[in-house]
Amino acid sequence: MPPADAEPYRTSLGTSSPDAIRLLGHDLTEELMGSVSFADLAFWLVALRRPTAGESRLFNAVLVALTDHGFTPIVLAARLTLLGAPEAVQGAMAAGLLGGGSRFLGTTEDTAAFLADGLAREAGRADLDALAADLVRERKAAHRTVPGLGHPLHKDGDPRTSVIHRIAEEEGVAGPHLALLAAVGRVHPAILGRTLPVNGAGVCGAALADLGIPPGLVRGVALVARSAGILGHLAEEMRDPIGRRVYDSVDRNAEYVAPDPG
Amino acid sequence: MPPADAEPYRTSLGTSSPDAIRLLGHDLTEELMGSVSFADLAFWLVALRRPTAGESRLFNAVLVALTDHGFTPIVLAARLTLLGAPEAVQGAMAAGLLGGGSRFLGTTEDTAAFLADGLAREAGRADLDALAADLVRERKAAHRTVPGLGHPLHKDGDPRTSVIHRIAEEEGVAGPHLALLAAVGRVHPAILGRTLPVNGAGVCGAALADLGIPPGLVRGVALVARSAGILGHLAEEMRDPIGRRVYDSVDRNAEYVAPDPG
Amino acid sequence: MPPADAEPYRTSLGTSSPDAIRLLGHDLTEELMGSVSFADLAFWLVALRRPTAGESRLFNAVLVALTDHGFTPIVLAARLTLLGAPEAVQGAMAAGLLGGGSRFLGTTEDTAAFLADGLAREAGRADLDALAADLVRERKAAHRTVPGLGHPLHKDGDPRTSVIHRIAEEEGVAGPHLALLAAVGRVHPAILGRTLPVNGAGVCGAALADLGIPPGLVRGVALVARSAGILGHLAEEMRDPIGRRVYDSVDRNAEYVAPDPG
Amino acid sequence: MPPADAEPYRTSLGTSSPDAIRLLGHDLTEELMGSVSFADLAFWLVALRRPTAGESRLFNAVLVALTDHGFTPIVLAARLTLLGAPEAVQGAMAAGLLGGGSRFLGTTEDTAAFLADGLAREAGRADLDALAADLVRERKAAHRTVPGLGHPLHKDGDPRTSVIHRIAEEEGVAGPHLALLAAVGRVHPAILGRTLPVNGAGVCGAALADLGIPPGLVRGVALVARSAGILGHLAEEMRDPIGRRVYDSVDRNAEYVAPDPG
Repeated sequence: MPPADAEPYRTSLGTSSPDAIRLLGHDLTEELMGSVSFADLAFWLVALRRPTAGESRLFNAVLVALTDHGFTPIVLAARLTLLGAPEAVQGAMAAGLLGGGSRFLGTTEDTAAFLADGLAREAGRADLDALAADLVRERKAAHRTVPGLGHPLHKDGDPRTSVIHRIAEEEGVAGPHLALLAAVGRVHPAILGRTLPVNGAGVCGAALADLGIPPGLVRGVALVARSAGILGHLAEEMRDPIGRRVYDSVDRNAEYVAPDPG
Repeated sequence: MPPADAEPYRTSLGTSSPDAIRLLGHDLTEELMGSVSFADLAFWLVALRRPTAGESRLFNAVLVALTDHGFTPIVLAARLTLLGAPEAVQGAMAAGLLGGGSRFLGTTEDTAAFLADGLAREAGRADLDALAADLVRERKAAHRTVPGLGHPLHKDGDPRTSVIHRIAEEEGVAGPHLALLAAVGRVHPAILGRTLPVNGAGVCGAALADLGIPPGLVRGVALVARSAGILGHLAEEMRDPIGRRVYDSVDRNAEYVAPDPG
Repeated sequence: MPPADAEPYRTSLGTSSPDAIRLLGHDLTEELMGSVSFADLAFWLVALRRPTAGESRLFNAVLVALTDHGFTPIVLAARLTLLGAPEAVQGAMAAGLLGGGSRFLGTTEDTAAFLADGLAREAGRADLDALAADLVRERKAAHRTVPGLGHPLHKDGDPRTSVIHRIAEEEGVAGPHLALLAAVGRVHPAILGRTLPVNGAGVCGAALADLGIPPGLVRGVALVARSAGILGHLAEEMRDPIGRRVYDSVDRNAEYVAPDPG
Repeated sequence: MPPADAEPYRTSLGTSSPDAIRLLGHDLTEELMGSVSFADLAFWLVALRRPTAGESRLFNAVLVALTDHGFTPIVLAARLTLLGAPEAVQGAMAAGLLGGGSRFLGTTEDTAAFLADGLAREAGRADLDALAADLVRERKAAHRTVPGLGHPLHKDGDPRTSVIHRIAEEEGVAGPHLALLAAVGRVHPAILGRTLPVNGAGVCGAALADLGIPPGLVRGVALVARSAGILGHLAEEMRDPIGRRVYDSVDRNAEYVAPDPG
């Protein structure tokens, strides 16, 4: 019997021989370097096809929208980690990405999945407003928030939302996820009794779903975008640090309270 | 005395108000989304200036070169982590990036620093071959390897090296780091007694240094590139997993040996 | 209005003054160092009370049971990360812990939560076998596995299970979670039509729940135990490495297959 | 030629068969669970021998000393990560450990290595004060700090230092590293012109070295201790969170400054 390892490990990504490097079935140096942009390669790695020019413009706009939101918990964790391990940039970047869970970045993925589930259930349904109303009513009945709605700061409208819709329209790549999210934006006030903005994370998730990114990878795309934002913050922390001041501001205000085992 | 926190936390990156989001001094939605590519934004976040078109092409080529090298230890760590925590993509991506230390990805940064140090010491020196020879001789005398030389597989020449040089020349953005690394490639055989290829990681580090990325951030740029490669592998692992087979192939071949406290 | 930071950050854990360090309301150097074991301190930090001697023996047994299971995906990720970043032990350890998600280590927490939910719903119910049968039937009806049952290797009985029960009995600290899990072990064959072992992770989760560890922290306790196991593997990797061989065994067997965008 | 994988992966740690689990050459369930404490097992995994009772007491005291120092950057990174990913406790713990680099926790390892190097160079030298003076003079001449000296808060003496020495003496396990560090504490004022305390991290590193932990693993031992402290903070963050307040305190005080590309 041949050893189990005689069975190869299949991959469609990078492989190398002594004189050539291949990636996604193309010669890395002859066909990709200098010819494909990094963002298009990132898209290709996940969607397994090269984006069109219009898809690329929307994909880049989404990545740009998701790159940095200032002093977020993610960024603070990365900067505080650099303070303790300045020699290991990879650790600080990893620490930042680890905050990209169900809250904050998770909204991109939750919205994509919410919209994809709705569309899958009601394939071919012409009246998106009626579908959106059903979905919002279901969430309300289940006492759950509606993914993609609401923002703690941009209460009267998230400025990213209309821009993503506009670029998708300009490039002719707007699809059913963006359309359904817009319908959710239209119909929810009558059902929920208040008007919430469609948020930037949600519209980015819808755009990525329209571009063909599987919902289970939408958060991963947001993490790639965020890795560049974290690097920007680590660069700034090296030039003009705030980590120690943040630490001191908490440590100085610490107050001991007796533990209560409940 | 005002509280220490009355002193603001300065940043040149993202800030938000209820109706606008700013990044690097520009309005995110009006000036950046749809207008700047993700790679250019990543460059901007680190170099604090927008790249020219020629710089952008070289920067993208470097990122593309660094994105994926197949089943590397980084990728295997990410895939094995996904096996144990499939619900936390951010953890698998972080686990992968954590292998981006002194070996493998570190070569980019080591080469950039090696070249920058050489150039700083010998500012204005016209004869790069003589400078390169001095640097190689010093490393040899110290029994240290020369950063940017050698590759376990591409022994007769790393195909990425000439492409990076060509693109840098085409775009008119080749600078002293690439020139010095080429000189190292020319002069080292006579000193070391054998001919080593200038490797892809090294030439990427030199190109990033010529583009103005500080050496201490070169590895961070490589990590951003690699985050997209890791995501591609996680997407593939979800479609066509190998993690459990890798685990089994090791576990099945485990052999107990008595501990030796030395 | 005073600044928000005038409000202190409360903690019951560590605080320091120039001449004393306090932890959990005790003087670290006068009352804890040399007097409390590390495991008891770990328990105390989570349960907010010092364990009794009997609780301590069971808690230590659980930690010992969870420390290492050989060449697991967690351990391989840690060793492969050390290969790429040997200078950053913290990164290798973190990479290992990141695999401590819903699979493998998650069984401890899933079992604790499953048992706690069952007990909460049926408080005071004397007949644990009847309760266990209801719980197993519900999982079966929902096409879900029963937490704590089954093991890929120890099919005829996990040797850890009886030992945890025995120690809990010896120390008089066996409680309703262990009892309910034992009932699940008794009643499930008739319902599921096959006999599965109560696994070690499950019995450890039940024991931790009986000791008063909140279910949401059970996996965290397992991670503390595993951190020691990972360190043992990193020590072994430094002495007698396998990381590069694992990498080579996969990379050498890589086979390119054309991507299929589906 | 047999496949490379025919060669087994050697380990002295955990191995399993259907009816037994072995660890360090012992039967896990028959010989270890209930019989060896978790801290002793952690020691054993690194030192490859079981500690004596006296060694165990000192080892536990060191672990207890290193477990928690309040609202450190490590703890803040962990808590901020939990805020973004409350479903992934392993990510928050990993984020915390990633700050265990060259600063803070690194002092344990730096001190152990500094003392071990000094002792190795001067094996058998009876006069430790003279050796210590040489070592301190060398660091001064090289404009480097002396590992193990100095503390930002405990300026007049770190309360942990004398306790570690006392326990080591009581248990008869004090060795040359602790003795040399004490000598450094005695002789440095005359050389440096000021009196610095021997700090807790340094004395813990010396004690671990005396116990036979290789210097390259000392930081890893500190990380195991810290994992319990981080878990305590994550438990507290779940009960009484501060993460969002820390985030708000920074974000609210953010001030945009124009980027300066230098």
